[in-house]
Amino acid sequence: MAPRQGELPDQSLYTSVRRYASGYDHPDYSCIFVHAGAGYHSTENEQKHLRACRNACQAAMAALKAGGTSTDAVEIAIRVLEDDPVTNCGYGSNLNFDGVVEADASIMDSFGRTGAVGATPQIQNPISLARLILERSSQPLTLKRVPPNFVVGEGAVDYAREQRFPVNTNESLVAHSARIRFSKWQKEIEYQEIMKRRGRDPDKSLTADLPLLGASNRPIQESGSALPPTTQELPGTPQLLEQKVDLVTDTVGAISIDRYGNMAAGSSSGGIGMKQPGRVGPAALIGVGTFVKDRGERQAATVVSGTGEHMLHTLISAQAVNRIYDSNDELDAMKKIINEDFMGTQGYGKANIWGEPAIGVMSVKAENVSSGKRLISFVFGHNTDSFALASMTSSDPAPKTIMSRVSREPKLAVGGSSRLVQMQIKTHPEEKPKKEKTSKRLGKHDKKYHISPPLKSEKRNSLVSGLEGLHIDSRDGESSGPPSGDNADIDDDTWLIDPADEEETV
Amino acid sequence: MAPRQGELPDQSLYTSVRRYASGYDHPDYSCIFVHAGAGYHSTENEQKHLRACRNACQAAMAALKAGGTSTDAVEIAIRVLEDDPVTNCGYGSNLNFDGVVEADASIMDSFGRTGAVGATPQIQNPISLARLILERSSQPLTLKRVPPNFVVGEGAVDYAREQRFPVNTNESLVAHSARIRFSKWQKEIEYQEIMKRRGRDPDKSLTADLPLLGASNRPIQESGSALPPTTQELPGTPQLLEQKVDLVTDTVGAISIDRYGNMAAGSSSGGIGMKQPGRVGPAALIGVGTFVKDRGERQAATVVSGTGEHMLHTLISAQAVNRIYDSNDELDAMKKIINEDFMGTQGYGKANIWGEPAIGVMSVKAENVSSGKRLISFVFGHNTDSFALASMTSSDPAPKTIMSRVSREPKLAVGGSSRLVQMQIKTHPEEKPKKEKTSKRLGKHDKKYHISPPLKSEKRNSLVSGLEGLHIDSRDGESSGPPSGDNADIDDDTWLIDPADEEETV
Repeated sequence: MAPRQGELPDQSLYTSVRRYASGYDHPDYSCIFVHAGAGYHSTENEQKHLRACRNACQAAMAALKAGGTSTDAVEIAIRVLEDDPVTNCGYGSNLNFDGVVEADASIMDSFGRTGAVGATPQIQNPISLARLILERSSQPLTLKRVPPNFVVGEGAVDYAREQRFPVNTNESLVAHSARIRFSKWQKEIEYQEIMKRRGRDPDKSLTADLPLLGASNRPIQESGSALPPTTQELPGTPQLLEQKVDLVTDTVGAISIDRYGNMAAGSSSGGIGMKQPGRVGPAALIGVGTFVKDRGERQAATVVSGTGEHMLHTLISAQAVNRIYDSNDELDAMKKIINEDFMGTQGYGKANIWGEPAIGVMSVKAENVSSGKRLISFVFGHNTDSFALASMTSSDPAPKTIMSRVSREPKLAVGGSSRLVQMQIKTHPEEKPKKEKTSKRLGKHDKKYHISPPLKSEKRNSLVSGLEGLHIDSRDGESSGPPSGDNADIDDDTWLIDPADEEETV
Repeated sequence: MAPRQGELPDQSLYTSVRRYASGYDHPDYSCIFVHAGAGYHSTENEQKHLRACRNACQAAMAALKAGGTSTDAVEIAIRVLEDDPVTNCGYGSNLNFDGVVEADASIMDSFGRTGAVGATPQIQNPISLARLILERSSQPLTLKRVPPNFVVGEGAVDYAREQRFPVNTNESLVAHSARIRFSKWQKEIEYQEIMKRRGRDPDKSLTADLPLLGASNRPIQESGSALPPTTQELPGTPQLLEQKVDLVTDTVGAISIDRYGNMAAGSSSGGIGMKQPGRVGPAALIGVGTFVKDRGERQAATVVSGTGEHMLHTLISAQAVNRIYDSNDELDAMKKIINEDFMGTQGYGKANIWGEPAIGVMSVKAENVSSGKRLISFVFGHNTDSFALASMTSSDPAPKTIMSRVSREPKLAVGGSSRLVQMQIKTHPEEKPKKEKTSKRLGKHDKKYHISPPLKSEKRNSLVSGLEGLHIDSRDGESSGPPSGDNADIDDDTWLIDPADEEETV
């Protein structure tokens, strides 16, 4: 998954910001979490999406193990996803109305530093340009101009050129699959024109299909064209192919914690298909698509995927970070994020933003729970059909992936896991961690994190390994165990808090 | 101050969203608050800035009295400021590095609807394009595409053309004063080049002057050129003109409440001088530059002005709205917004975003305090030298303006006022407001809102009328009354809660 053009820009630009959490340094524990979008993933293509996630985790973990920062890991994970044509970012992005790939990307670190690009053409790895902007934010531009945090459109291309960052042609970013989607949508448009000229209501006859142009993370029925068999036969209701061949064409994201205790998060997206040129979506927006809050003792990050236009006024990633940060029950917090903070503010009063709101949320939280011990919690939720995720920690031999699915209405799935990490004490040997009673602490976390015994799914898909200790809670009132039907396969390996973890120094 | 080109776009697009606050309709009370930027305003130019604010209030109030919505009022107030060359927005904006006016603007209403443009050339009234985007967000674009909330760069120009919104030439947006600033900065650059070629450190010798290129709301010493008298004489330390001839080249903003009880807020800016083309600043960003939260019983809005790159990670307008919304002591909340939420998160850890952070914040809050009575609070704060503000309510014969100033370090000024409004009961006559003891309620608000007796400034500037009931609190530990020196002139007319207000139905 090496980039096809150019290398990372001048590495000397990058300042490795290292910070030691709460007097404990070098815990030698790092982790990466990625998602490849919430939406509808056909079972046929499930493997492609999960393989992309796995590759992203592996590349990022290699960087983390080599001493890379969480910002490095997030950038690298998202580069891998951008280079994979199956995802809607970088190479293989949706085309806008004019047939141009226009990228949105953002990245944020533990220190509140941010970098973002929006509606930017000709960049294969927008996350790397965003990261360059983040790094440059500490240094004045030429002529002592304040360095920008957020650069868009052609200006971002100029910025890239000025910084000797690789600039591509649009053609080199257009994947075959994206070209096919674009052509089909163009034909839809022609069809609409014909229908209009014949005096029929083109919208009415295409209702079942055309909303897919806009609703970015709803099922993209790639083959579900409303086009009639031939242009000679124009039925009143076009024959829709029922087969759900997905392309989930939505935002990807990553969150990482590095061995220095720092956190970073990033998002990247090609945006919605046939979008208005110049349209900026949540993946470019700090607080909407990407957010990190870090106060040392505790830190949290969130990246989201979904219908962008319904997210802007909710500042949903910042809102999610705040809820997760303050909560003792992250799964419950995740339900509130989706049901209240996102869905609850849609169309309040008479707002009526067009389209159907949908979202997938991925959050990570780390906090000191006792002397020398840090609890790392991973939690996600979605009200889309599916959500593709993966994780890898420095103690895992391989990434763990999950395609979380839910089909019953009202759709809502939440899940997560947590792990207690024993930090290595180096800088402050005088501050010895008190040896606490294992049972006491376990009881506490058991209550806090809905710990259930290691679970094993009935139905096992050998190609999908579950996230560690995954806890699926499809919606209120249902079993809090993993539903056997729609939901995730659970791996043997658990990430639950158990006595063994007490000694873990990994 | 009529627009020089074109009219408002097709009025039929606009849907007047009307909502009745808490069962009380048509209170026949409306208000508009505007600011023309935080920074340094020379006393010589003070009147120009305040006149622009006054004109903005008058135009907006005319619309409100004619039945216009708060969104109309915000749009119109900001159009007036955009059309005035003294402000850095619309006509008269700073030019970017390539000599182009690139506009940022955003608008948000009580219903969570938003519209924004960023780094957009060729638009004289970016607030109106943002407002058009807001209105269009309820309607699918052609071909059922999801309507965008945020459109940038050339794409926004295409969008404008598609919507038959006026598109100008760049030249028509460049004011004489902006051209002069640009030329001076270009000469600074040439000077730097010469210094560099001569082997001197151009940065070092220009430290006192050049940061003005970047620090958008710090003193713009228009005549304080670092240029030597002639290019033949190149002194090591260029002769700086001490005279502070300002141009505060920063974001403008407006907040309004209309007779239907709805709130709206908006911002507009030409961004920092010589900015990176494509750079998007806070005025374009919901949650950073502009935010509204409205739950009927209570509503709050905030717009900000300041060093944009230091704001992004703080989501400062949303943060301010939340603080003000939840607070019983808005002046104290405003201090926390500036000192903790903004300054407190600058460079936490080792972030080190380049440049000196500075901010001006303007907030409005309205809430039901007893049956049929709504308390409207206005509060502002800044840690810049000055902040130009104005307000007008439907009961005022003329706008009230203030140039809030502070010069002592550490700079911090907060101020505000509040008014109790008796709503007219129309829709729910059965819900009769209970007649409460005046003294009791007064006591309560007295405590809550730092009510002090009507104040009269010692030093009176006849050209500046004070905001009603203005309460200035320059910083912790100082007198809570208005400082006699730097600070605001107070008008006779007060907006404090007093028995007379109890009967006010205005």
